[in-house]
Amino acid sequence: MKLKDINSPEDIRGASVQELEALAAEIRIAILQQVSMHGGHLSSNLGAVELSIALHYVYNTPDDILIWDVGHQAYAHKLLTGRFEQFFTMRQRGGISGFPKRSESIYDPFGVGHASTSISAGLGFAVARDFAQKDNQIVAVIGDGSMTGGMVFEALNNSRQTKKNFTIVLNDNKMSISPSVGAFSKYLSKLSVKHNRSLEEFGKFLRSIPEHVSSKLKGLIEGGWLAFENIVNPGQFFRDLNVRYLGPFDGHNLGELIEAFKEIKELPDICLVHVLTQKGKGYELATKNPTRWHGSDPFHIEDGSIIMEKLQPTLTSIFGKTLLTLAKQNKKIIGISAAMLDGCGLGILKEDPETADRVFDVGIAEEHAVTFAAGLACEGFTPIVAIYSSFMQRSYDQIIHDVALQNLPVVFILDRAGLVGSDGPTHHGAFDLSYLRTIPNMVIMAPSDENEMRNMIYTATQYKKGPVALRYPKAVTFTNDIRTEFSELPVGKFRAVCEGSKVLLIGVGFMLAKCLDAAGVLEKKGIKPTIIDARFVKPLDIESYKELFKKHSLVATVEDNTITGGFGSAIAEILAEIKNPPRLLRLGLPDAFVEQGEIEELRESLGLCGNGISSKILEALK
Amino acid sequence: MKLKDINSPEDIRGASVQELEALAAEIRIAILQQVSMHGGHLSSNLGAVELSIALHYVYNTPDDILIWDVGHQAYAHKLLTGRFEQFFTMRQRGGISGFPKRSESIYDPFGVGHASTSISAGLGFAVARDFAQKDNQIVAVIGDGSMTGGMVFEALNNSRQTKKNFTIVLNDNKMSISPSVGAFSKYLSKLSVKHNRSLEEFGKFLRSIPEHVSSKLKGLIEGGWLAFENIVNPGQFFRDLNVRYLGPFDGHNLGELIEAFKEIKELPDICLVHVLTQKGKGYELATKNPTRWHGSDPFHIEDGSIIMEKLQPTLTSIFGKTLLTLAKQNKKIIGISAAMLDGCGLGILKEDPETADRVFDVGIAEEHAVTFAAGLACEGFTPIVAIYSSFMQRSYDQIIHDVALQNLPVVFILDRAGLVGSDGPTHHGAFDLSYLRTIPNMVIMAPSDENEMRNMIYTATQYKKGPVALRYPKAVTFTNDIRTEFSELPVGKFRAVCEGSKVLLIGVGFMLAKCLDAAGVLEKKGIKPTIIDARFVKPLDIESYKELFKKHSLVATVEDNTITGGFGSAIAEILAEIKNPPRLLRLGLPDAFVEQGEIEELRESLGLCGNGISSKILEALK
Repeated sequence: MKLKDINSPEDIRGASVQELEALAAEIRIAILQQVSMHGGHLSSNLGAVELSIALHYVYNTPDDILIWDVGHQAYAHKLLTGRFEQFFTMRQRGGISGFPKRSESIYDPFGVGHASTSISAGLGFAVARDFAQKDNQIVAVIGDGSMTGGMVFEALNNSRQTKKNFTIVLNDNKMSISPSVGAFSKYLSKLSVKHNRSLEEFGKFLRSIPEHVSSKLKGLIEGGWLAFENIVNPGQFFRDLNVRYLGPFDGHNLGELIEAFKEIKELPDICLVHVLTQKGKGYELATKNPTRWHGSDPFHIEDGSIIMEKLQPTLTSIFGKTLLTLAKQNKKIIGISAAMLDGCGLGILKEDPETADRVFDVGIAEEHAVTFAAGLACEGFTPIVAIYSSFMQRSYDQIIHDVALQNLPVVFILDRAGLVGSDGPTHHGAFDLSYLRTIPNMVIMAPSDENEMRNMIYTATQYKKGPVALRYPKAVTFTNDIRTEFSELPVGKFRAVCEGSKVLLIGVGFMLAKCLDAAGVLEKKGIKPTIIDARFVKPLDIESYKELFKKHSLVATVEDNTITGGFGSAIAEILAEIKNPPRLLRLGLPDAFVEQGEIEELRESLGLCGNGISSKILEALK
Repeated sequence: MKLKDINSPEDIRGASVQELEALAAEIRIAILQQVSMHGGHLSSNLGAVELSIALHYVYNTPDDILIWDVGHQAYAHKLLTGRFEQFFTMRQRGGISGFPKRSESIYDPFGVGHASTSISAGLGFAVARDFAQKDNQIVAVIGDGSMTGGMVFEALNNSRQTKKNFTIVLNDNKMSISPSVGAFSKYLSKLSVKHNRSLEEFGKFLRSIPEHVSSKLKGLIEGGWLAFENIVNPGQFFRDLNVRYLGPFDGHNLGELIEAFKEIKELPDICLVHVLTQKGKGYELATKNPTRWHGSDPFHIEDGSIIMEKLQPTLTSIFGKTLLTLAKQNKKIIGISAAMLDGCGLGILKEDPETADRVFDVGIAEEHAVTFAAGLACEGFTPIVAIYSSFMQRSYDQIIHDVALQNLPVVFILDRAGLVGSDGPTHHGAFDLSYLRTIPNMVIMAPSDENEMRNMIYTATQYKKGPVALRYPKAVTFTNDIRTEFSELPVGKFRAVCEGSKVLLIGVGFMLAKCLDAAGVLEKKGIKPTIIDARFVKPLDIESYKELFKKHSLVATVEDNTITGGFGSAIAEILAEIKNPPRLLRLGLPDAFVEQGEIEELRESLGLCGNGISSKILEALK
């Protein structure tokens, strides 16, 4: 049985454990090859190989429904479900997705990308099955990191909505992207150790005491005065939510996993199956440093060195360094992240003894992160909530209700704004300018380069009148000329880059560079546009904009945000109120979900590049 | 000690339990009087009188921080904190808020309105206290209903972020607005009964067995093989989250509560104090039917009859009746609500045996509600998620990521869209058109009357291409002429109401009536505007709109949504792309949080009425 010959899970169902183990080794090699060549999620996928095999071996997929939470662990699943041929196209433009995706395969019944959705979705499938009077199984696989998201608790609380078997597999590797945090994670560790030993000990104890005593003890248990399961089984937390706890099982022992799932499949209950796995299993470098290897750029398998080492620092690291400097000067600054200290650049504050205790990783808990920050702001602190743009969507209500309504000075840092590249549509930060702009009292900034960014971070921490959001893309920087001083920017004011005539080009954030590229093309055609760095998306200096509009016959706005309701719409709102306005071209992301691909490649395909912008302008000028 | 003489909690701190009990009776009368005269939240407030007194008696407010989750139980708190004089202005324009509000009192350290925020915010206050090296206490009071929201779990998971005392008071009345649902609620019931009895029984048992056995048992416990607390204390769920469980206590026994809080105040721990209260306590009608009396319009105290009985059905009830009819014809329709079956009109489906099993109340769990619906839609069902507009903000990410990205046919019903009146800024549905419009694949409808509404509900359930949202205000209907047939509306097409010239008036939803009022005023001035019922906010029939724009010199859009990014902005986006466009007046809610007041009164003050609209138009025509 060779991996390349597996067209569907049916092909593995007759195999022996030995054959499956050989298959697991082959899958690991394929994963390593793919990620080392094209980048992607590594250590979580290496940890879930046996689990994926065991599930497809025991369950009758695709009739049985298998949902992978987040999807950082679904590569083996893809390889087992007829996608070996396309596997090496993964995360590339036109290739298969790095996440389970409904439109890609009948084995992906539910698309994922954001954490903590699988139990809710699985319950939907389970209730649908009950209504349809079918007998298929529903399995949701969720990591311990995702278990810190509040939605999971909402779903567990409602898991009795289905009347038949519903299985939650807890893939416990002690990590989300960073090590899992919080009380729940500690609780899981306790479970992992205690199991069976306490059961065994209790059995020994019962046998060692006089029978009239042990029968009395049993009587108390039967009478409900003592919960028997409380004593012998440490999964009470889940039982208190009416979910049957089973485990923990060794997630790398195929024989044990298969036997366990065979039994669990026959249970009529809502079950939580606790499986212990090791992140990075099979690749020594990754087991030693699973956070580093959660996701990786292409690398040399032999020594783990990155193939194309980035020479320039990322915007993420510039944010981190800038905040570290500011936090040393200003003891009121507190950093908050949701399970992504490093991903958001806060890691270096955690490592520095001067600032370490002012950094909080709250787990995958974006809602809590924001309201926690609101509480801190009430007491005069300056909380900096750093969360990727697409995940900040989770906090929309808390930003409105707990922060903006009370006009609290919380700073929101939205990394990975705009297109994120190979993670694709679940992760593009395509909506932030639009959803933040609807919120009263909100100040929204987008830096056009690294020095602007530093000044904006500074300005945000100085601003005391209400909330500030700062968004920037996933990018390396352009320059090594990073200044050391800070200057406060006037809130709402744009920056004039160069003066021209006829055409007014307004760039939002890093799209300014694309405007400059476009100007280069236009100048060859004899058109010298005026170029503006918007700096702010809200508030806007409407009067100054109106002055500019009078002097130009065409305005083009360029943003890496949906054109629906974003910066261009803000300009349209102003234009609609003036007499004889210039025409407006709103250039940005389309009102559609954008697929995966290299960021620059995607931008070009959407016209967000010098040629795209200039040709739109030339067309409009005709 | 009279209620009217209490200027601050300081005034009650020397009183005897008897005096406090007399005060509790006075407070109940004040609450009954206020709600019977002006409407408001009744039964939850009546249940929390003793709890409020005990907390202010024991804790040194406002130095000690007291946060009330949701705020449906904070009337006694308001009466005890110097707001007796203003109490009867509550929920009225210019009066005090029905919820705790920072700008109103130093005794309201954190504003609330939406559920499940208090522990997160309280942790922010607690961490701030730790940094400031202060010793004040932090207390968050949360109802059992709010405990079903996922944020609470996220916060509990992080409660060890504070190093000192932090107290969570669980005000357990077995209800949110409707009876609390789910496994967690059942768990709390179990706690309420088991306490002490199991402790007592276990002590008896230990004494009854030979000492060498009991010492062996103790040895097992000490060795960690048996968790002693597991056996004698039923609050393990919280302890598993590292939170110390205490209780349950009788929430109407002032002596017991005061003693308990005095002890708890001295504990260094993160504590959860379980207090049992009765919703409606002291008003027999309310204890018998606490859901009916959760919130009430003005009523006669003697018999509970409503003073101004509404003669017309509400839009909420029309939605419920319409969906009941459709659900009987179409077995794929499934209703989902988040702790508000009645509030959202789904109650009658729950009561009808033909549809009862197709209605799900998931608790205060808006995130889970949406992703659960997504799962159902994957399997061919037509889930209808009915949630108030301002609470749907909680689901923004799930609507994008789990529904729209997969283009699933989930129907979103947003009741209480636009201004909601006396509940004020936390509850106004001011942002939905803006935040929904940013989402690709989304269809957004707003009915202008009850028959339009029926047809839109029908159209939404027939639409299979993707998600549909339907939003309407809190209102009674205009007409008794409700048709029985349904007709499917063409998606994206507006409806021409009457043809005029020069001025084009576009009404969104029930704002159409205001446009008609404005037309009445304008006609007296010799202006006959063209009037359009927008019907759809997304998609828009851009070509037909452009045709209309050519024929008019002024366009006015009228919506009860923020003017930032809403329907008017969608029209501005179209206008910005055409040559010599007509001018645009975008009329709607301001880009600011709108205060409380009667809905019509607020609309008038914001110019969303016949006179306001017509005068803006006349001014623009000058």
